[in-house]
Amino acid sequence: MTRPASRRDDPSFITVPVPLGDRAYDILVGRGVVETAGSRIASLGARAAAIVTDEHVGPLYAAPLAGALEAQGLRASVITLPPGEATKSYANLEQVCDAVLAARIERGDLVVALGGGVIGDLAGFAAAVVRRGVRFVQVPTTLLSQVDSSVGGKTGINSRHGKNLVGAFHQPSLVLADTALLDTLPLREMRAGYAEVAKYGLIDDERFFAWCEANWQSIFAGGPERDEAVAQSCRAKAAVVVRDEHENGDRALLNLGHTFGHALERITRYDSARLVHGEGVAIGLCLAFRFSAALGLCPEKDAERVEAHLSAAGLPTRLSHVPGGCGTVDALLDAMAQDKKVKGGALTFILARGIGQSFIAPGIGADKVRSFLDSELEPSRS
Amino acid sequence: MTRPASRRDDPSFITVPVPLGDRAYDILVGRGVVETAGSRIASLGARAAAIVTDEHVGPLYAAPLAGALEAQGLRASVITLPPGEATKSYANLEQVCDAVLAARIERGDLVVALGGGVIGDLAGFAAAVVRRGVRFVQVPTTLLSQVDSSVGGKTGINSRHGKNLVGAFHQPSLVLADTALLDTLPLREMRAGYAEVAKYGLIDDERFFAWCEANWQSIFAGGPERDEAVAQSCRAKAAVVVRDEHENGDRALLNLGHTFGHALERITRYDSARLVHGEGVAIGLCLAFRFSAALGLCPEKDAERVEAHLSAAGLPTRLSHVPGGCGTVDALLDAMAQDKKVKGGALTFILARGIGQSFIAPGIGADKVRSFLDSELEPSRS
Ligand SMILES: NC(=O)c1ccc[n+]([C@@H]2O[C@H](COP(=O)([O-])OP(=O)(O)OC[C@H]3O[C@@H](n4cnc5c(N)ncnc54)[C@H](O)[C@@H]3O)[C@@H](O)[C@H]2O)c1
Ligand SMILES: NC(=O)c1ccc[n+]([C@@H]2O[C@H](COP(=O)([O-])OP(=O)(O)OC[C@H]3O[C@@H](n4cnc5c(N)ncnc54)[C@H](O)[C@@H]3O)[C@@H](O)[C@H]2O)c1
Ligand SMILES: [Zn+2]
Ligand SMILES: [Zn+2]
Repeated sequence: MTRPASRRDDPSFITVPVPLGDRAYDILVGRGVVETAGSRIASLGARAAAIVTDEHVGPLYAAPLAGALEAQGLRASVITLPPGEATKSYANLEQVCDAVLAARIERGDLVVALGGGVIGDLAGFAAAVVRRGVRFVQVPTTLLSQVDSSVGGKTGINSRHGKNLVGAFHQPSLVLADTALLDTLPLREMRAGYAEVAKYGLIDDERFFAWCEANWQSIFAGGPERDEAVAQSCRAKAAVVVRDEHENGDRALLNLGHTFGHALERITRYDSARLVHGEGVAIGLCLAFRFSAALGLCPEKDAERVEAHLSAAGLPTRLSHVPGGCGTVDALLDAMAQDKKVKGGALTFILARGIGQSFIAPGIGADKVRSFLDSELEPSRS
Repeated sequence: MTRPASRRDDPSFITVPVPLGDRAYDILVGRGVVETAGSRIASLGARAAAIVTDEHVGPLYAAPLAGALEAQGLRASVITLPPGEATKSYANLEQVCDAVLAARIERGDLVVALGGGVIGDLAGFAAAVVRRGVRFVQVPTTLLSQVDSSVGGKTGINSRHGKNLVGAFHQPSLVLADTALLDTLPLREMRAGYAEVAKYGLIDDERFFAWCEANWQSIFAGGPERDEAVAQSCRAKAAVVVRDEHENGDRALLNLGHTFGHALERITRYDSARLVHGEGVAIGLCLAFRFSAALGLCPEKDAERVEAHLSAAGLPTRLSHVPGGCGTVDALLDAMAQDKKVKGGALTFILARGIGQSFIAPGIGADKVRSFLDSELEPSRS
C-alpha cells in the first residue's frame, strides 16, 4: 500500500503517534514489539507495574512480559481475571483497584492491560481511578483491541442498565500492538476484529477498503499486511479521536454499523456463543449500506461489495445469520431505541453515499427504519 | 474584616469564583442560597437532576430542593444513603451509579450532592464515571464540606487499603454553600469543620487567624461572620487548587495538621465515636506547631496561641485528648509511614515558622519525629 511513510523508531515496527497535547502517546505496531516492552515502559519512569490480564492470555504472555519489566528493574505483579464480557463489572473493578493498590502502585507507576478489549477497558478504568489516576499502557492481544479499543482512551465497565455506562476518558501512555500475539487468537475473534478494520475503509477511505479486499488473507495469515492493516486502522481511529477526544461530535462516525450491531448484541443478550461484537458490527455494516441504498443515498453495488467482502472473510452479513434469530422488527426497533445515540425519540444513524463516504444522519424517522427492516426480514432476502 | 470585595450577584450572597479555565465554577455562600438552587441549576442547561443525600440530611433538606428543581421544569429524583464514612464504599458507588442511570441522567444532566463530605466525595465520584462523566453540583451541608471538601474537585471512595484511594478529579459546575443549613449540624461536627477554617489562617493568613480568634463565637452562632468565614476559607482553598489542580505540589500545604491527624484517624480506626476528621486535624495542627517549635523553627508562643484558640472553640489539642488513647510512639510512627505523603522512607511534614507561615518540609528524619512524640506523650505534658 502506498501511504505516507510512518515515523519508525525501530525499522521493524511502525509508530502511529496520537497527538493529544499533554496526553499524547505513541502506538507501536509490529511482530515482537512486546519483547521491547521492558525498556519502553522503564523509560516512562515508573518503578512498578501491575499487569492485568485474563485466564486465556495470561498463561501465554504474562510471564515473559513480567520478566521483561523485572529485567529493567521494575517491580512487576500480575492480576488475572476470568475471560469474557461479564468481567467488565463493578465487582472486578473493585478487585483490580484493590490488587493494584496491594501491588503498591504509586502515582508515578503504572498499570499494564494485557488482553483484549475487556481487559483494556477494565484495567484502563482501574488506572483512571486508583489514586485518582495512575498511568497505563495498553498491550492489546486481540485484533479488535489493536485496531479499536486500545486507542482513544475510552475505558469502562458495564452496568445492569447497559454496556460501558460507567467509566472514564483516560488515555494510555503507550500502546504496544504486537501483531504476533494474534497468532494464538481464535479465528472467530480474528474475524470479529476484522470487521472493525474493514469499517475504517468504509467510513472514509475507499482505497484502504480496496486494499483490504486484496490483502485480507495475508492479514489473517500474519504477513506484513497484518501490521499495515493494524497501523492504518490506528491512524484512522487516532485521527478521529484527536478531532473529538470526548465524543461530542465527529467521533460518532466510528459507530458506522454499530446502531444495528449494538441492537443485535442486546437482542442476543451479549451471549458470545451467539454473537460477538465484531459479528454484530459486520451485519450492522451491511445493514447500514443496504439501508443507505434503500434510502436512495448509495449505489446498490456498493452495498453488495461490502457484503461480498465481509462474507468472503467469514463474517455474518444478514439478520438471518444471527444464530437463534434476531427477533421481530419491533424488538429490533426497541433495542435500537435504547442506544445511547438516540436523542429525543429520533434515531441517529451513520449512513453512506458510497464506500468511504459515510456521514452522520440524525433524525431518521422510525417508519423508514421499520420498512427497511421489514424488507430485510422477508424470507426471500436471506 | 477588611478584605478585597467579593463579586456579588445577589446582595445577600457572596460569590467566590474558582477560575479553572474550561472547568471554572462559582461557589455561592450565604443564608438561603439553596432556595435559589432551582433557577441556578436550570440555567446550567440540564433537563434532569439526581440528588444524592444521606439519612440525616435528606429528611431535612431533600424535598424542598427537589421541589425547587421541579418548579424549574427539571426532572428530579432523590437517592438516599446511610450516613457515615463507611458509605464511601465500592458497593455504594455501584448503587449510586446505577440509581443515577435509572434516573435517566444523560451527558447534559447532572448529579447534586446534598450532604457533608461523605456524600460530596461519593456522589462526585459517581458523577465523574457515569457515562464517563456527567456534571455535578455540590450543596455542602457541613461546615467541613462548605470550607473544604466541596471545593477543588477531589472525589472518591475508600479502599480496604486506605481512605480516598480510589476516585477522580472532577470539578463541580457550581457549589451552593448555604450557611443556614449548618443550623441543624451537631455541635461536634461544627467544631470539627472549624478546625479546617482555622487551618487556612495558620497556613498563610495570620490576619484571618486573628479574625477567627475574635469572631469564632459568631461563626458558631450563625451570624454574618459565618458566611464570611466560609467564603474566606473557600477563597483560600480555591487559590491553592487553581495553582495545583491535580495535587502535584503546592496543594500539599492544605495538609497542614493532617500528617498527624490522619495517623490518629488510622489509630482510632476511623471510629467517629472516638475521633472525627476535624478533631484529628485540630490535634494535628497543634502538634505541627509544637513540632515546629521543638525544631526551633517557630516561636513557642505561636504554638501556644494555636492551642489556646482551638481549645477555646471546644476542640481537642493533645494526644492525650484522644478517647481511648492514641497508642505508643511506634504505633503513631507506623501510622504516619502509611500516609500517602511518605515517599522513599523520609517523612514530609507541613511545618511553620509562625502563624500564617507554613511550608512543606520534606525529608524530616524519623528520629526527630520520635523524640518529639516521646515528649508529647510524657505524662507531664497532658
Ligand atoms: N474502549 C473502546 O473504545 C472500545 C472499543 C471497542 C470495543 N470495546 C470493548 O472491547 C470489548 C471486546 O474486546 P475483544 O473483542 O478484544 O474481546 P475480549 O477481550 O473478550 O477477547 C476475546 C477473547 O479472546 C481471548 N484472547 C484475547 N487475546 C488472545 C490471544 N492473543 N490469544 C488467544 N486468546 C486471546 C480472550 O481471552 C477472550 O476470550 C468489549 O467489552 C467492548 O465493549 C471498547
Ligand atoms: N474531597 C475533598 O477534598 C475532601 C476534603 C476533606 C474531607 N473530605 C472527606 O469528607 C468526609 C467528611 O465530611 P464531613 O465532615 O462533612 O462528614 P459527613 O459527610 O459524614 O457529615 C457528618 C455528619 O453530619 C451529618 N450532617 C451533615 N449535614 C448536616 C446538617 N446540615 N444537619 C444535620 N446533620 C448533618 C451527616 O449525616 C453525618 O452524620 C470524609 O470522608 C473526608 O475524607 C474530602
Ligand atoms: Zn466496535
Ligand atoms: Zn481535612
